[in-house]
Amino acid sequence: MNKGQGLKIAVIGGGSSYTPELVEGLIKGYEDMPVAELWLVDIEEGKHKLDIVGKLAQRMVRKAGIPMKVHLTLNRREAIAGADFVTTQMRIGLLEARKQDEHIPIQHGVVGQETTGPGGMFKALRTIPVILDICRDIEELAPEAWMLNFTNPAGMVTEAVTKYSRVKTVGLCNSPINFQKFLAEEYGVDEKQVLPEFVGINHLHWVTSALVNGEEKLPEILAGGKQYSAKNVPTVGWDPEFLQSLGAVPTYYLKYYYMTNEMFDEMKESLEKDGTRADVVSRVEKELFELYADESLEEKPKQLEQRGGAYYSEAAVKLMRSLYKGTNDIQTLNVPNGTVFDFLPEDASIEINCIVTAQGPIPLMPKYIPEHIKGLLHAVKSYESLAIDAAVSGDRGLALQAMTHHPLVPSVTVGKLLLDEMLEAHKPYLPRFFEEEEQQ
Amino acid sequence: MNKGQGLKIAVIGGGSSYTPELVEGLIKGYEDMPVAELWLVDIEEGKHKLDIVGKLAQRMVRKAGIPMKVHLTLNRREAIAGADFVTTQMRIGLLEARKQDEHIPIQHGVVGQETTGPGGMFKALRTIPVILDICRDIEELAPEAWMLNFTNPAGMVTEAVTKYSRVKTVGLCNSPINFQKFLAEEYGVDEKQVLPEFVGINHLHWVTSALVNGEEKLPEILAGGKQYSAKNVPTVGWDPEFLQSLGAVPTYYLKYYYMTNEMFDEMKESLEKDGTRADVVSRVEKELFELYADESLEEKPKQLEQRGGAYYSEAAVKLMRSLYKGTNDIQTLNVPNGTVFDFLPEDASIEINCIVTAQGPIPLMPKYIPEHIKGLLHAVKSYESLAIDAAVSGDRGLALQAMTHHPLVPSVTVGKLLLDEMLEAHKPYLPRFFEEEEQQ
Amino acid sequence: MNKGQGLKIAVIGGGSSYTPELVEGLIKGYEDMPVAELWLVDIEEGKHKLDIVGKLAQRMVRKAGIPMKVHLTLNRREAIAGADFVTTQMRIGLLEARKQDEHIPIQHGVVGQETTGPGGMFKALRTIPVILDICRDIEELAPEAWMLNFTNPAGMVTEAVTKYSRVKTVGLCNSPINFQKFLAEEYGVDEKQVLPEFVGINHLHWVTSALVNGEEKLPEILAGGKQYSAKNVPTVGWDPEFLQSLGAVPTYYLKYYYMTNEMFDEMKESLEKDGTRADVVSRVEKELFELYADESLEEKPKQLEQRGGAYYSEAAVKLMRSLYKGTNDIQTLNVPNGTVFDFLPEDASIEINCIVTAQGPIPLMPKYIPEHIKGLLHAVKSYESLAIDAAVSGDRGLALQAMTHHPLVPSVTVGKLLLDEMLEAHKPYLPRFFEEEEQQ
Amino acid sequence: MNKGQGLKIAVIGGGSSYTPELVEGLIKGYEDMPVAELWLVDIEEGKHKLDIVGKLAQRMVRKAGIPMKVHLTLNRREAIAGADFVTTQMRIGLLEARKQDEHIPIQHGVVGQETTGPGGMFKALRTIPVILDICRDIEELAPEAWMLNFTNPAGMVTEAVTKYSRVKTVGLCNSPINFQKFLAEEYGVDEKQVLPEFVGINHLHWVTSALVNGEEKLPEILAGGKQYSAKNVPTVGWDPEFLQSLGAVPTYYLKYYYMTNEMFDEMKESLEKDGTRADVVSRVEKELFELYADESLEEKPKQLEQRGGAYYSEAAVKLMRSLYKGTNDIQTLNVPNGTVFDFLPEDASIEINCIVTAQGPIPLMPKYIPEHIKGLLHAVKSYESLAIDAAVSGDRGLALQAMTHHPLVPSVTVGKLLLDEMLEAHKPYLPRFFEEEEQQ
Repeated sequence: MNKGQGLKIAVIGGGSSYTPELVEGLIKGYEDMPVAELWLVDIEEGKHKLDIVGKLAQRMVRKAGIPMKVHLTLNRREAIAGADFVTTQMRIGLLEARKQDEHIPIQHGVVGQETTGPGGMFKALRTIPVILDICRDIEELAPEAWMLNFTNPAGMVTEAVTKYSRVKTVGLCNSPINFQKFLAEEYGVDEKQVLPEFVGINHLHWVTSALVNGEEKLPEILAGGKQYSAKNVPTVGWDPEFLQSLGAVPTYYLKYYYMTNEMFDEMKESLEKDGTRADVVSRVEKELFELYADESLEEKPKQLEQRGGAYYSEAAVKLMRSLYKGTNDIQTLNVPNGTVFDFLPEDASIEINCIVTAQGPIPLMPKYIPEHIKGLLHAVKSYESLAIDAAVSGDRGLALQAMTHHPLVPSVTVGKLLLDEMLEAHKPYLPRFFEEEEQQ
Repeated sequence: MNKGQGLKIAVIGGGSSYTPELVEGLIKGYEDMPVAELWLVDIEEGKHKLDIVGKLAQRMVRKAGIPMKVHLTLNRREAIAGADFVTTQMRIGLLEARKQDEHIPIQHGVVGQETTGPGGMFKALRTIPVILDICRDIEELAPEAWMLNFTNPAGMVTEAVTKYSRVKTVGLCNSPINFQKFLAEEYGVDEKQVLPEFVGINHLHWVTSALVNGEEKLPEILAGGKQYSAKNVPTVGWDPEFLQSLGAVPTYYLKYYYMTNEMFDEMKESLEKDGTRADVVSRVEKELFELYADESLEEKPKQLEQRGGAYYSEAAVKLMRSLYKGTNDIQTLNVPNGTVFDFLPEDASIEINCIVTAQGPIPLMPKYIPEHIKGLLHAVKSYESLAIDAAVSGDRGLALQAMTHHPLVPSVTVGKLLLDEMLEAHKPYLPRFFEEEEQQ
Repeated sequence: MNKGQGLKIAVIGGGSSYTPELVEGLIKGYEDMPVAELWLVDIEEGKHKLDIVGKLAQRMVRKAGIPMKVHLTLNRREAIAGADFVTTQMRIGLLEARKQDEHIPIQHGVVGQETTGPGGMFKALRTIPVILDICRDIEELAPEAWMLNFTNPAGMVTEAVTKYSRVKTVGLCNSPINFQKFLAEEYGVDEKQVLPEFVGINHLHWVTSALVNGEEKLPEILAGGKQYSAKNVPTVGWDPEFLQSLGAVPTYYLKYYYMTNEMFDEMKESLEKDGTRADVVSRVEKELFELYADESLEEKPKQLEQRGGAYYSEAAVKLMRSLYKGTNDIQTLNVPNGTVFDFLPEDASIEINCIVTAQGPIPLMPKYIPEHIKGLLHAVKSYESLAIDAAVSGDRGLALQAMTHHPLVPSVTVGKLLLDEMLEAHKPYLPRFFEEEEQQ
Repeated sequence: MNKGQGLKIAVIGGGSSYTPELVEGLIKGYEDMPVAELWLVDIEEGKHKLDIVGKLAQRMVRKAGIPMKVHLTLNRREAIAGADFVTTQMRIGLLEARKQDEHIPIQHGVVGQETTGPGGMFKALRTIPVILDICRDIEELAPEAWMLNFTNPAGMVTEAVTKYSRVKTVGLCNSPINFQKFLAEEYGVDEKQVLPEFVGINHLHWVTSALVNGEEKLPEILAGGKQYSAKNVPTVGWDPEFLQSLGAVPTYYLKYYYMTNEMFDEMKESLEKDGTRADVVSRVEKELFELYADESLEEKPKQLEQRGGAYYSEAAVKLMRSLYKGTNDIQTLNVPNGTVFDFLPEDASIEINCIVTAQGPIPLMPKYIPEHIKGLLHAVKSYESLAIDAAVSGDRGLALQAMTHHPLVPSVTVGKLLLDEMLEAHKPYLPRFFEEEEQQ
């Protein structure tokens, strides 16, 4: 790394409403990790937002009085060249595409969600080819850079990068860090005093241990009924008998699997009342950008915390810092499986506790993996691997297999309907699936 | 084996309507495998049927002119003592219990089926403790005997015997032999000229190769749309595009997973029109026993072939014969996994091609295992293993986990409802689940 | 296959003294497997022997009165084009090279043997690049052909073909068929009535079961002390206590590992008395070719059976016939591991019972794999994989690692001495190891 | 743990000459980990030494002015009852037995060493039954205690405890901590700034990564030729070409495998000159106890550092402290394999980097496992598992298999000779092997 002259960070999708949080994190952590150049990149369609967010970032840095230069650009290669870290936060097809991902499945009686189910699959199909394009640039222009993926579906995107590029990458989700904060708050201790153990893959993990000052609090948590959730997920509660016999705390995303009916009903009702989550986010974003545009604003506005992705940037800055300094601290990350889960392929991405060395994360072996969950975990990973290969190849057959083997898709018939309708809806962002057709 | 003085076979559940087929098979195969004693055992409640079937069996043997003695008894230990083969074909709770297994899930929007879903789970919960009781007798009275399980759910029952007894056992299903016959008929060749390869577990397998005179016909079958099904399974057809991208022929039981909606609708409709499959079988059985009781009948009546379990007994006799003679021929059987599927436990039962030596079956490695199916296979096996342990322990928590992790159960809420209602409905046959309660 | 017009077989190394046995086999099996064309190919240096053997082959065929045409050629591509089977039996560097393989290790206190130890390693280094060249021709000119490897070290050569080409291949050794014959003779039964189970890799297997008419005779064999060996291996006997606690019959090649001292001493003594095994073979071959040249000879001479590789050709003809007819019979073959040994890589070649279908061999799962032997098996396979990669890459570092990790090489110092000396001795046949040097 | 009233530690083999180092460590670490009671236990034969060492310990504590009570006892159960930590450092048969372990193999041309080869095997055979006896006491009297094994062969002893008891245990060796110190010294940094990665099992590991301030220094170390060894191991150096092509630094114990000849020669020569290592240690111990007996001595004498087991106690105190405080720091420990090495059994003990939580160590996945070493690692682990089972069962057949499958034993003949002679030599300490005999 450019330890001497300060680091260079490239933020792909720099015009995102999350960027101020990232900038705040870099400012706070400047002493430990001096960043000389922060490059915010976006595409032509995002120029307006990039401009607003970028200027806010520049005001924030100026106020902080640190020598970090904030560059705004539409030239991705210029941003990447020589970078130490590349982060990605993007949404191919913007919120309009997300709306389709949420809307179309609901119409066919299936969970419509950004990262889970058919919606998540199509987000992967749209995103992976673009991410791999970025990887080509990194391989050429910054081969030593770490790519920090927090583009969803983060697990699948990370797995695609691992399988189909030589870029060093780690996937990041805010869900583990949120659980850690929940645990610390619940027990009135500092975050450093808690150590939860996560077993699973992105958006499909189970907490199988929760140490607080070295004491195992899991049985208490399972019995106590204190429940933990996230802002962007409906709030149906867990059945206590189920939790206790499971012996682990499932992530709230697992409600899509364990409480499919309830989640579907809640989503459908909410859709009728408020529109999709995409609509909600769209309104929130509009308000945020109005705030950001205010030239007197020189710090991250409180309202951003309502946005749903709380602590994403905190997680990212923490990871960069640990990689930079080689702190060997424990973080929950998306990394290749290796032999951790002996029933999954070695190159499958999993979400697991790691220590972060200067050379990258090293996974900690889980204390144990409940027998109960292996099947569901494998089923979802099978779907993910098929979807990744479909995204890379544009092969409709693979996409059909991915869709019909997704545990939330109730039949081949529904799966095919969804596939056809969603391929059509996202056609502009899925060139690989329509290439042959166009050639004819 | 008692090769010198002829074999002894004990048929547990000897009063079953299937017995005449088995007797026919033993008569036909007498020259290759001389059976000196055939013991038909049943319980007190089955005495009447045992009597009718038993007498028919005796007439059949007399007509055939072979020195095979048919014994009827309610004394299981007497039947088992010194046996070479013990077969089991039983239904704990009789057809009335099956009716509940089919009816209750449908009421809650879930597939109601004898071997798949909550119905299959409860059949396992009722059956496994009884089978293990029988195993205790075999361990004591006929430790060298082979136990041939064709009691459903055959895979789970076999796995329970493997895990919780020292009895030598093989599980048997008529589905593979039916596919073989279908293939032979389709191509106008003898059964010996076809070699399909089965990958999976009982009632959840995929045909991944189909050699006819050494030529691979699978692509042709997948493309051709010629479809294969069984009498006791609704007849919705496979989608050809799905089959081709899957690259394998799924057993018709997989329709419960791949076409859940359609199967549910068809079942529900049929339930309203004809009652459950249990009702249909009940009527068929009534007719069969009227036939059997006719003292002029000296052979298996044609009508038995309508019964649904066609070729079950053919499969059983074939297996006994191969074990007896050490023919080293290929049969598809339920045996422990070993290292065949590296993602499943070694003691999990799988359904796979084996050669049958005199010392037992030896599995053939599958040519390949499609990536697509690994997750679903693992998910169902996870449920099965949980249900087996629940059956043995009577642990409600394990039963809840089995139920809620079954891919066809849409939520913990529905799973709990089903568990409660079905535990209550089958209470007399589930003593291990109510022991503590009673002790209080 | 060219089932209509008769098969075409190409024999690479057709001038071998073994060829008359192969021809005899093809004649005997002609009815079952009509071979229209037999192409014997050899290199320029082998022209004289090819001529003698080829003419004998032609006389044999003529006498048999079958329409099989025997072609003699130095043009490998012509022989391969359109072939159904390609067999390889060759010795790169001829007997002179074998002499070095046997002689040099002995000088340094290490077993000097054609297939085991440093000698086997150098035979692999010389042979694999040539075999892969042949594979290039097969891929181009006969992509559907089966390549039957009986070139030693057969396991390593087969593994190299599997890893580094698309050619369909099976490795063959006469050791299993010899054990089968020994067993049949011992118990006075037909070969078809015995079924030994082999666990391991080529020249490193253990017999873990020996069924004779379906009865397990292994304990008897282990206790009885009747011992089995081969003509080309010294005759030190096994310790009975060792055999019994091992619970398996090791192949005689395992004496190099289990009785290293004794084997070394016997070899050294024999070297001083008779020269190397290569010298012995050289004399035998000389005599054989004198016989072959006799124009009145029209059949395989008895003396060939003294040659050491007895039944190699019988094994080969049996395998071709089973592939041709899809007999689904059991043969012991060298095939990729898949998941059979869960501690070895999936593409490692293993020697194991298979059924031979028209589409190729399918391995039978071993009944069990003794814990005792796993380490030694893995150690030798680690060496083999390193040596294969060294052969393909010409990388000296890999070769050094292969040599020093061979269980029979007592130290890095000795390993390096052997490596240096043998590289020098075989320099003409190891171009890949000397390329860079030459370029400088 | 007894966090409130201070910890209780029981030292089995408390009369060891190493004890003063342990006491020094506990004194230094008292602030972080207040130990209220230190129980030094020994057997009748060790009473004299216990008395001397124990009084020195009491003087050391008194001088330090801390309220830690040092108890001396021959009553093991009293010492264990309610303990938080139990450490074991013992030598069944004392130095006299070690002498035999070193002497007898050398007589037969085999490496004679305390932990490696036949000597290590017999140390395991003598020690494991005693350790398991201690475990019975801990299970009963201190079920929550951690047992810290530094009794050699530490890996095998730890594996035996894991397999055959319910005691929580960790195995400890000073070799990793020594390498860490070597690395820190070499690069002039603090120990905390280095992070070597160890792959393997006790006394058979390879360093596959060496981070110094986050930078990978392994290539430099492999190239540089700076070599690292230990006081109790002969000093033959590694061949640089070998190291570089290996790509890892082997522990010096691996010289017994990679430089068998040289090590043997050096040992034999040294035996003739100085007697066995046991003789040397015997002399050193005599001198140490003379020092310890001096009533004016109130601290650990410098001379102890010459003893060979340097930093053993530092490692032990560090581990206790981390378990006590839940520091989550990285230490190299002997723990069950789980899925780390997918080719070894899950309950095999391995030596690997772990983080130490208050609930015990959690292994870090190795970054990679060199293919080269898998075979040797597996071979030694196969031997170890056989020897452990032999120790527990007293089965001569298992012992013969362990001995003959040890990579350093050249033949069954030599293996049997060694087995017979060593069984006889250690007869008083191997009751399980002579039970039947005695009963006759």
